[in-house]
Amino acid sequence: MKIGVFDSGIGGLSVVKSLLEHQLFEEIIYFGDTARVPYGTKDKNTIIRYGIEAIEFFKNFELDLIIVACNTVSAYALDEMRDSATCPVVGVVEAGILACSNSLDKKNSNILIIGTHATIDSRAYELGLKTNNFTTITSKATSLFVPLVEEEIYEGAIVDASLQYYFKDIDREVDALILGCTHFPLLSDALQKYFGDKTKLIHSGEAIVEHLQKQFDFTKRYNNPNIKFFASENPDALKKVAKKWLDI
Amino acid sequence: MKIGVFDSGIGGLSVVKSLLEHQLFEEIIYFGDTARVPYGTKDKNTIIRYGIEAIEFFKNFELDLIIVACNTVSAYALDEMRDSATCPVVGVVEAGILACSNSLDKKNSNILIIGTHATIDSRAYELGLKTNNFTTITSKATSLFVPLVEEEIYEGAIVDASLQYYFKDIDREVDALILGCTHFPLLSDALQKYFGDKTKLIHSGEAIVEHLQKQFDFTKRYNNPNIKFFASENPDALKKVAKKWLDI
Repeated sequence: MKIGVFDSGIGGLSVVKSLLEHQLFEEIIYFGDTARVPYGTKDKNTIIRYGIEAIEFFKNFELDLIIVACNTVSAYALDEMRDSATCPVVGVVEAGILACSNSLDKKNSNILIIGTHATIDSRAYELGLKTNNFTTITSKATSLFVPLVEEEIYEGAIVDASLQYYFKDIDREVDALILGCTHFPLLSDALQKYFGDKTKLIHSGEAIVEHLQKQFDFTKRYNNPNIKFFASENPDALKKVAKKWLDI
Repeated sequence: MKIGVFDSGIGGLSVVKSLLEHQLFEEIIYFGDTARVPYGTKDKNTIIRYGIEAIEFFKNFELDLIIVACNTVSAYALDEMRDSATCPVVGVVEAGILACSNSLDKKNSNILIIGTHATIDSRAYELGLKTNNFTTITSKATSLFVPLVEEEIYEGAIVDASLQYYFKDIDREVDALILGCTHFPLLSDALQKYFGDKTKLIHSGEAIVEHLQKQFDFTKRYNNPNIKFFASENPDALKKVAKKWLDI
């Protein structure tokens, strides 16, 4: 299978990392809209417009599947992107919701969702979880986590103070913490330490892999896939981060 | 005088605040390129292109002067913007350098410049200060300060940890601290506390006012100027912040 992965910037590389680890695809085209990142502060109509433009870009390749690796785009623009696309389109939000449904006791699980303002304001995770009969759900926009990751600050005093700032009024007895932004897996260690080992972290990349493995029959493994990176601005910077994060 | 003020987003409102306090202008047109903010991570050619586009936008009004309130744009695109403009264009970087020249002992002053990665990488302040015979200059990109201000976090544990993180290897005996990003004046109290009362903070808004007062003869005062706000995206959000910051 030849697939496209779309993100507003570099964050979706954490999803590509999971795809590479599971060796599911023969060819991966990554597109990061680095000229217009961040999407997390933009309004709904703009995000939809950018999502449709990404679909148009992917029409330059004959793809079998498009993965929307950006939580904000998945939350706001998935339906419109599907209408424009000529292949299936899957998003990290629905994958994250399914990952919760498949692994948690719906009645007694306490779920905490974190993400950008736009993702949290969309209530996409919250409504999806409610439709799946989950009852105890808390949402919190933790915007500072994005620039922390972009500054490569993953631990230490600023991270500890930020965790305290955002979660001071939130019960630490969390069964599942949805990392509703593709930057956040880089803060996994700090988050796991803060909430404790009992909290399951829901990672968009792993959730997408699990979701796809239920939908498609992956008989072959590709340990050396063909992967190409495109960016709407400064592709060299994106490739540099990709090399570092993906160790390729 | 009818003037235009350009910034990549909302930060330039701190410059408008100074302009309003000094009651220099009859009419102010503010334009924030909120659709494409932040500029601080973009490359030089892109910043120049956006700067020229801003000049084109201002041609819709008959302006007497354009103030480039964004440090990153002032550092990279001022010459090209001047070439495109039909009125004088002044930038906050040259104003900040002049503010240092006018108030400090060049031989014995220790100057610290803080800003976004793009502004610091441009070395615009540094080179300008060297041309003006300053010798002891340190530069530090403090990117996290922008999202801190946008999250309205001006004090407390995250700010303290961030100050410690960025300045741990920097001598606190600073004579002038150039706030090389229009967001940073909102962190003035924390910065003044960290470096101590002997450190003079160079604020872009105040520096621009000082610079203009040397260039133009302001005989009249306007205590109720006509001010209009434009944004390339979500103007309502910009107007909301403007109301709050400018108390209008």
